Amino acid sequence: MVVNRLDDVVTGALEVLDAYGLEFCSMRRVAGHLDVQPSALYHHVADKQTLLALMADRIVADVEVSAAGSVRERARSLVRALRAAMLAVRDGAEVVATASAFRLGASQVEADLVDVLADKQGARTLLLFVFGHTQATQMHRMAASVGAIEPDPDLDASFDRGVDIVLRGLL
Amino acid sequence: MVVNRLDDVVTGALEVLDAYGLEFCSMRRVAGHLDVQPSALYHHVADKQTLLALMADRIVADVEVSAAGSVRERARSLVRALRAAMLAVRDGAEVVATASAFRLGASQVEADLVDVLADKQGARTLLLFVFGHTQATQMHRMAASVGAIEPDPDLDASFDRGVDIVLRGLL
Repeated sequence: MVVNRLDDVVTGALEVLDAYGLEFCSMRRVAGHLDVQPSALYHHVADKQTLLALMADRIVADVEVSAAGSVRERARSLVRALRAAMLAVRDGAEVVATASAFRLGASQVEADLVDVLADKQGARTLLLFVFGHTQATQMHRMAASVGAIEPDPDLDASFDRGVDIVLRGLL
Repeated sequence: MVVNRLDDVVTGALEVLDAYGLEFCSMRRVAGHLDVQPSALYHHVADKQTLLALMADRIVADVEVSAAGSVRERARSLVRALRAAMLAVRDGAEVVATASAFRLGASQVEADLVDVLADKQGARTLLLFVFGHTQATQMHRMAASVGAIEPDPDLDASFDRGVDIVLRGLL
């Protein structure tokens, strides 16, 4: 494959993520998957951290804030969509949470949540609960899928209840 | 080293964690560090997941709930102590959060927090915020320590503000 565009690098990285998980998603392996030398990757992205941020942006690209509804409804639907987008990709919550920790709030979703709540610290608190819960859910599901633990049927409902608790503290 | 006791295995695993990080803390590497065959480890712990739970228990072993104060004060001091214990160990937040996701609330700290708040879902929500924030803090500090990003001076204060938001939603 000829890596002509940054988009191709991000696509390749997400394919490696899906196949091997974040733990084994190295620049070297992404280069190998794209059948190029690692130096060709570095032509497009400065480092692993930059690649991770681009992967995170792609994972949440379709998460949109709704224009209608109360603040509570808009915040709730935004974080539900964020959770669904992260759960749809292997280790997606870890990728997005890690990228967020490195940038501290530069992503579009984070900006949208600040906008909806009109409260930067409140948005950050809700977001960190969302990351914490979704990472736990994803780890739990992964372990349950290989039979290591019993599945927990309450994970979706407990997310909603937790979001409502945080929003009650905010609004 | 002769691995006579389960405690020795957990100590060895925490030494490997400190030296290499969670990503490279495999059963094989822990066995190598203890200078025993992997089979000798499996005599003490059934699998990696069990080992992780034991490491998490050791990391938070000194986190104690205070008997005095209001519910809010006791919850606040408990999660502050939990955060400090996780930050004191390399990748500590990831170890404790991962073990928690696998067990869903079987640890002593989680039981203590349920007890203080008299609210299982509330305790879980606060705990997932604590994990989310502390993992973000630890990743951020690690990246800042190698000069990859600028340190954020607001991480401690933002933790306290976030805890107060969640507690406001709960109490």
